[in-house]
Amino acid sequence: MLYKNEQLHEEKVFKDPVHRYVHVRDRVIWDLIATPEFQRLRRIKQLGTTYLTFHGAEHSRFNHSLGVYEIVRRILTNFEGRPHWNKEERLLCLCAALLHDLGHGPFSHSFEKVFKLDHEHYTQQIILGNTKVNAILERAEKGFAQKVADVIAKTYQDQLVVSLISSQIDADRMDYLQRDAYFTGVSYGHFDMERILRVMRPMEDQVVIKETGMHAVEDYIMSRYQMYWQVYFHPVTRSAEVILCKILQRAKVLYHDSTYTFTLKPTHFKSFFAGNVKLEDYLKLDEGIVTYYFQLWQEEEDTILRDLCERFMNRRLFKYVEFNPNSQMNEWMELHKLFTDVHINPDYYLVVDSSSDLPYDFYRPGEEEERLPIHLLMPNGELRELSRQSDIVEAISGKKRTDHKLYYPHDLLENVSDPRKKKRMKEILIGQGEEKHVN
Amino acid sequence: MLYKNEQLHEEKVFKDPVHRYVHVRDRVIWDLIATPEFQRLRRIKQLGTTYLTFHGAEHSRFNHSLGVYEIVRRILTNFEGRPHWNKEERLLCLCAALLHDLGHGPFSHSFEKVFKLDHEHYTQQIILGNTKVNAILERAEKGFAQKVADVIAKTYQDQLVVSLISSQIDADRMDYLQRDAYFTGVSYGHFDMERILRVMRPMEDQVVIKETGMHAVEDYIMSRYQMYWQVYFHPVTRSAEVILCKILQRAKVLYHDSTYTFTLKPTHFKSFFAGNVKLEDYLKLDEGIVTYYFQLWQEEEDTILRDLCERFMNRRLFKYVEFNPNSQMNEWMELHKLFTDVHINPDYYLVVDSSSDLPYDFYRPGEEEERLPIHLLMPNGELRELSRQSDIVEAISGKKRTDHKLYYPHDLLENVSDPRKKKRMKEILIGQGEEKHVN
Amino acid sequence: MLYKNEQLHEEKVFKDPVHRYVHVRDRVIWDLIATPEFQRLRRIKQLGTTYLTFHGAEHSRFNHSLGVYEIVRRILTNFEGRPHWNKEERLLCLCAALLHDLGHGPFSHSFEKVFKLDHEHYTQQIILGNTKVNAILERAEKGFAQKVADVIAKTYQDQLVVSLISSQIDADRMDYLQRDAYFTGVSYGHFDMERILRVMRPMEDQVVIKETGMHAVEDYIMSRYQMYWQVYFHPVTRSAEVILCKILQRAKVLYHDSTYTFTLKPTHFKSFFAGNVKLEDYLKLDEGIVTYYFQLWQEEEDTILRDLCERFMNRRLFKYVEFNPNSQMNEWMELHKLFTDVHINPDYYLVVDSSSDLPYDFYRPGEEEERLPIHLLMPNGELRELSRQSDIVEAISGKKRTDHKLYYPHDLLENVSDPRKKKRMKEILIGQGEEKHVN
Amino acid sequence: MLYKNEQLHEEKVFKDPVHRYVHVRDRVIWDLIATPEFQRLRRIKQLGTTYLTFHGAEHSRFNHSLGVYEIVRRILTNFEGRPHWNKEERLLCLCAALLHDLGHGPFSHSFEKVFKLDHEHYTQQIILGNTKVNAILERAEKGFAQKVADVIAKTYQDQLVVSLISSQIDADRMDYLQRDAYFTGVSYGHFDMERILRVMRPMEDQVVIKETGMHAVEDYIMSRYQMYWQVYFHPVTRSAEVILCKILQRAKVLYHDSTYTFTLKPTHFKSFFAGNVKLEDYLKLDEGIVTYYFQLWQEEEDTILRDLCERFMNRRLFKYVEFNPNSQMNEWMELHKLFTDVHINPDYYLVVDSSSDLPYDFYRPGEEEERLPIHLLMPNGELRELSRQSDIVEAISGKKRTDHKLYYPHDLLENVSDPRKKKRMKEILIGQGEEKHVN
Repeated sequence: MLYKNEQLHEEKVFKDPVHRYVHVRDRVIWDLIATPEFQRLRRIKQLGTTYLTFHGAEHSRFNHSLGVYEIVRRILTNFEGRPHWNKEERLLCLCAALLHDLGHGPFSHSFEKVFKLDHEHYTQQIILGNTKVNAILERAEKGFAQKVADVIAKTYQDQLVVSLISSQIDADRMDYLQRDAYFTGVSYGHFDMERILRVMRPMEDQVVIKETGMHAVEDYIMSRYQMYWQVYFHPVTRSAEVILCKILQRAKVLYHDSTYTFTLKPTHFKSFFAGNVKLEDYLKLDEGIVTYYFQLWQEEEDTILRDLCERFMNRRLFKYVEFNPNSQMNEWMELHKLFTDVHINPDYYLVVDSSSDLPYDFYRPGEEEERLPIHLLMPNGELRELSRQSDIVEAISGKKRTDHKLYYPHDLLENVSDPRKKKRMKEILIGQGEEKHVN
Repeated sequence: MLYKNEQLHEEKVFKDPVHRYVHVRDRVIWDLIATPEFQRLRRIKQLGTTYLTFHGAEHSRFNHSLGVYEIVRRILTNFEGRPHWNKEERLLCLCAALLHDLGHGPFSHSFEKVFKLDHEHYTQQIILGNTKVNAILERAEKGFAQKVADVIAKTYQDQLVVSLISSQIDADRMDYLQRDAYFTGVSYGHFDMERILRVMRPMEDQVVIKETGMHAVEDYIMSRYQMYWQVYFHPVTRSAEVILCKILQRAKVLYHDSTYTFTLKPTHFKSFFAGNVKLEDYLKLDEGIVTYYFQLWQEEEDTILRDLCERFMNRRLFKYVEFNPNSQMNEWMELHKLFTDVHINPDYYLVVDSSSDLPYDFYRPGEEEERLPIHLLMPNGELRELSRQSDIVEAISGKKRTDHKLYYPHDLLENVSDPRKKKRMKEILIGQGEEKHVN
Repeated sequence: MLYKNEQLHEEKVFKDPVHRYVHVRDRVIWDLIATPEFQRLRRIKQLGTTYLTFHGAEHSRFNHSLGVYEIVRRILTNFEGRPHWNKEERLLCLCAALLHDLGHGPFSHSFEKVFKLDHEHYTQQIILGNTKVNAILERAEKGFAQKVADVIAKTYQDQLVVSLISSQIDADRMDYLQRDAYFTGVSYGHFDMERILRVMRPMEDQVVIKETGMHAVEDYIMSRYQMYWQVYFHPVTRSAEVILCKILQRAKVLYHDSTYTFTLKPTHFKSFFAGNVKLEDYLKLDEGIVTYYFQLWQEEEDTILRDLCERFMNRRLFKYVEFNPNSQMNEWMELHKLFTDVHINPDYYLVVDSSSDLPYDFYRPGEEEERLPIHLLMPNGELRELSRQSDIVEAISGKKRTDHKLYYPHDLLENVSDPRKKKRMKEILIGQGEEKHVN
Repeated sequence: MLYKNEQLHEEKVFKDPVHRYVHVRDRVIWDLIATPEFQRLRRIKQLGTTYLTFHGAEHSRFNHSLGVYEIVRRILTNFEGRPHWNKEERLLCLCAALLHDLGHGPFSHSFEKVFKLDHEHYTQQIILGNTKVNAILERAEKGFAQKVADVIAKTYQDQLVVSLISSQIDADRMDYLQRDAYFTGVSYGHFDMERILRVMRPMEDQVVIKETGMHAVEDYIMSRYQMYWQVYFHPVTRSAEVILCKILQRAKVLYHDSTYTFTLKPTHFKSFFAGNVKLEDYLKLDEGIVTYYFQLWQEEEDTILRDLCERFMNRRLFKYVEFNPNSQMNEWMELHKLFTDVHINPDYYLVVDSSSDLPYDFYRPGEEEERLPIHLLMPNGELRELSRQSDIVEAISGKKRTDHKLYYPHDLLENVSDPRKKKRMKEILIGQGEEKHVN
């Protein structure tokens, strides 16, 4: 039998807390899971620094990737025999689902921001480069790796296949909402996925939803909305991310500073600092490696790097206040000067972070470069965009609620010796509104 | 107000997937959680290598420790105003609950086995040594650290307090059964904890259970039984542990071998290899550090160390067969010789592992050195040991079901060039019974 | 000890699938539960005819009443010691919570509609009349029954007490949303009640919500919205209700028709038909009694009554189509005439039902006679009405989405002998849009 | 297309709280559900009087029957294409599953006991008699009704088919354990059904379980054990059943007593009292009818009937004490005399009830007339009976733990005027052990 069509002697299952079981019958899928590139995802947390806010959120991208695969598998079971569905695309869909996040690195969001990287670029490279994953895909079919890469890049010709993996209601999102809710323990993030799978219908160039399932989809959009504000944009998580970015930034500065000698050389980071990261370097980096450095850099000579690493490792995070950099330019400038005066380097210790920088949206139907909107299949056969049919979705779609916060080390303020300056700093910071501490 | 009695301005909560919320009102508890020694538990997995069998099991001891604290907190709320309960012991109980696992290191079970360590020893040292945790406890009350250490060591005079933290039905076990079930996703591990908490009664020297709650306790014992066989003793998990032990063992041999030069020196392991681990060394080791070494040792010159690390990181585990070393001594010796002949070092690649080596029991009422058995409080006021009242518990108590398995690298066998030897090895190994692959 | 303050020797619990346990410590509460008037609620379904759509919805108002009591009990535990909270009102709140639905009759909504009754009127009568419930309340304190009645009637002076039982986020609604979701099995209806209870604060004249809990409240409002459209307004349930109303209407007509003799006299209905229902009559009616009549009336001589009863008992419901009586007056008149022509009495077999007739709203802050809106307690101490702070709530509040449907017996149409008329009837009915059958 | 093979245009689903969705695709199944005989099961509670102990247990046999059908449907999906499985039997299995409880009457257990009826007899009659159900089955295939009846009667030749519906681990039990746990809200009754379904294998004459699934089956057996002792044998439920039996017994006596005239004639019970119940009579009786009589009989002249009905309707149950009629014959005789002396008729008010009378067992492999035991399919292909492989099952199997209780109206004792007799009665009753009141 062709390797591509080879079935396992007996179906294998993974016990999964979210989907109960993940079922694998295809040899190709089984072999992909066993590759070092895929196993590496066990060492990348799904939610980056969120575990410092919600202690349950310690789950990895490995978990999530299996989950996305399983959802696509179930969708395709429902598609069997329906018009528009080409069963020849089955394995392609499953592989793309499994591998769609393969390029994620440690604390992706922060690394991408500081080093101007793009995990999607690395997903492509891993699939197309000299890797075990590539070998398996090519063994399945000559040119198959490119197809998988195209689906993930959304350039594959059959847009129906693409929409399973990335659209406004794709398997990726359905998995992460449920999974992140499960592990954080929040009561949001639940929706009736079984019902949604039942009302999904393949069309020429996209998956659509039978109109009778509209309320289930509304519930899914609301879950997203709640998860973003309650979990993904949580200001404490962002505080940890701010520190993480500043560590990377500081280490890079020191690396380029010929006068500074690291006690522990940033070997694994070199190519990141130099801006020429090769696939091989990229694959070697995982969160175990990164925290190794952070752990040891607590004993570096540079006080800023030392302090930031110590903060990250021991969860001594920055406090925050609401702060609008546009309307509060004067305060900003005054604070900047005061921090400089009392020798707290504002480049590292006075940071504005805006939620709009974050890679999430709950539903934006019309925007450019956006994922496909959700279309309802009406009883008369016509398609209608969701937000035109649902009041609730219309109400939240496209709203850009930016949430600016100013992060700073509250504890350092206490040590400021000049009483007038100390008082003024506190006035500006705490006077802005009530200070909130979470956890 | 005394620091010991200080309450937070407003109660803080942690969102917990198992207990919904963990509530903190005492300043001392809040401060203990913030110490580096306690935060370090975030970098130690609760279930060691189990995540390689059940991918959801990525949760840390930090999680579990908060959970044990929360259960004790709830028990004490129920105890308020009951006879035998001395409310002066409240903070002591809470601290002991929170800190009882503080001395766990990375992959505890394997490290303890290879290096003859004892995590309880380190728990004592961290509480009594020069640490942030100790400072907080002593600030609460002179001599308080010693009390907390005594409760955890079970030597504290008030055995009622001890039994909350360690007995056959203590908060520790009630948390881990539920938590491990939640994160692995198995359907075992559930019991009606709320009911058990309602029927717990303080007595002079132990917590007892009102007889009307017997069925809830039976259910708890059964959960334990099922969790041990389904999760804790899972042969795939043990396969990963076998490899881990062998890595440590090999690295130690190479360290003492003056002819070998490490590409990456085992700096963090030195004191472990030398057998003189100081508290400071111990605290520096976490699972991030350990996997850093394993990751890099994949490029060591020594082929055994290299291969074992590569197996561990990429989950290329050993296969296993049922094997009783007592009754199958001849096969064992023949295999040992065959492995040696074909240059697969049997010291590292032919390993018998027995479940009785594992640190779990489900219920052994009478044995020496054993935790306190469970006593039922009968309607007439007398106490009766659980297994004398419950058929089910009697049926499983004290049964030592040892499960021996022989682990070996199935893939290496395929490369054996001598066809006769290869055939014979397979005969002995696979002929022993059907080979099982899980996941 | 005063009866009012009497505590049970040991706390009693009811196992409850929604709140896990319902706890009772007060003798008064225990005695109220044991009264015939309260036990009668076991024979009144919480959701009327909904069980014909969602087969799990067979739960009674007894269940729900215990649930509301339990939620209020938990709220008051959180209120202990807070400003504005007068602990003297505790028992009053608990009694009002327990008894708030006492006046519900069988299939309340239909009975109230057909006979112009009001269950709140009967709740008052049962509490104040010559009943066991009244005797217990008066034994607790002279005049206590009146106080309980006032709280339920919302006329009690302390509006804080009133708002616990009836406001936009009262214990009543929090219980029924969760309970109805549990028993129907739908995935809507979940929200984080524990969190909401934690952020509730007593104020002078109402319960308010700390602003940090806004998202949990949004989630609760959304649950309501989804439950209304998915469960409470479900067109199949309404079809059963239409038939039920028509049975009552027909029996009344026959009762007043001196030429008709019932095989089974409507003894229990007499006072309802005559419009002079006494408390005693009212209390004797429950769903067992009602279905007894419907069951036996399947053998009445009158074909309409017979047919309708047979439909109700065997769930042969009317079909429905979208139908706007305002814009489709012509079709309506034509249908009416056609039905009459073919001897299908349109008074019973051609029924328009509108969702706006139903006693539910999801959130209408400003309207007259409306329950108190939800106020958020902002960090600066001011109060702000929820829909002014939440985009989502604003989006759905006050929207009156009326949903008109026309119900008719599809099966009878098939038997119409005149082919032209039959064709025309189908044209109008099925041509209106695609016919939908659920279950 | 043949009616037998006819598929619905689109799959229909029922929302089910236990199995999430019940899926129907066969026209025959859809039509069977719509019959009056099947709809009647909505008016028969699954757990009889249990709702008086666990208020959530108000679910009907309609619910359960759909559940059993759904489980068999899922099992058969897994069987597709396996050896030994004859797919021609599919519809037969589904029909037998759906209809297996069709003959249950109101409060089955009590009615069967008092009137010496057998619900299985009526299931046969309904399937084979002049009913809508029969018509549908015969329309599907001539002789099909007999086949369905045979499967339910366990006499069908293909014992594999029989074992799906009735064996020690059949769909019936798997549904009711989970369903009854769900509705009562107890934490027992959970097991990993999905796993059990995955390890079920069809064999020539039975369904067996792959040995790797043994622990899941143990868990199922334990669930059963716990459900029996915690729910099904609950003494408060039995108290209500005792009263129910005594009502029926008393009414029968009065019916045969020519001197007594009923205010409400027991029309529906006549044939039951006379011992010649026809199918037509049987089908007319449901729990609505029964409670109608009980409700009205509260105003009968006979004080015993009146009192018992009033107790049942208002849940004024008998109290109970442990009582072994074998060893306590003297007390029994003395009590009997005392009751007679003080004019409390012991035939109705002094009742011994034994759990061994109840129609439940948790696991009895060898007994005569017993359901098929559970066989494990070992890796080497041989079959082994479960209790020989599992310590736990062995421990509880075949154990007949009889639990005798004496029920009596505690409140009437208080009214006994003779102080000596009153004291003595209490001595015997309450002196027997501590009296327990539940709920």
